[in-house]
Amino acid sequence: MKQPISALQAARSLSELWSPRVIAELDDSYVKVAKLEGQLGWHSHAEEDELFLVLSGRLRIEMEDREVTLGPGDCFVVPQGIRHNPVADPDTCVLLVEKRTTLHTGSEISEHTRSLESQLRPL
Amino acid sequence: MKQPISALQAARSLSELWSPRVIAELDDSYVKVAKLEGQLGWHSHAEEDELFLVLSGRLRIEMEDREVTLGPGDCFVVPQGIRHNPVADPDTCVLLVEKRTTLHTGSEISEHTRSLESQLRPL
Repeated sequence: MKQPISALQAARSLSELWSPRVIAELDDSYVKVAKLEGQLGWHSHAEEDELFLVLSGRLRIEMEDREVTLGPGDCFVVPQGIRHNPVADPDTCVLLVEKRTTLHTGSEISEHTRSLESQLRPL
Repeated sequence: MKQPISALQAARSLSELWSPRVIAELDDSYVKVAKLEGQLGWHSHAEEDELFLVLSGRLRIEMEDREVTLGPGDCFVVPQGIRHNPVADPDTCVLLVEKRTTLHTGSEISEHTRSLESQLRPL
């Protein structure tokens, strides 16, 4: 990362929904942005926490025993092992911090599932 | 972290400048907020990268061979081992993601240096 990046502009530049893109490396983690709308589907990450920071729009994170709703500037960590389903309003952009080992939809595979390779494409 | 947190509100609630506060645990890292103004001083973190995301105001990060300037929504990673000096406009609020092992001002000690214990106080 040679220059600062506007996380919101980077997220808005993405043409595909639910397709995170790496904007920076951070030790053994990646900083990613994504554009969301609708739901991703239930999944969990057995060994990794996941940081969500909403940049625009509104994101509901359904969990098995509760749900939380994030607006712009709100952040939340889904703890490792917790099944969750992100559900987003139109034009919702997020910043994520995830371990390099984190799989997009955990052990669940759906039409939304994206490879790490696709997330590493240049913006 | 039971509920989402507004990173900007959390940062604005801090009474002390250059005194980061942990708002969430993220694997072996902490998510922190801080309110900044003026300069922190030159330091480096030998083994840890450091993510800065500006929430309000303007932050210049001086490095030995260059500098970058971040406005609201901009993010930047200072790589491990790189000496840097954060310089902030008044009312600058930031979100940081740092390893739990990261020392506030690296191996440099100044009047700004804060212990991890102080950073773990409740908001």
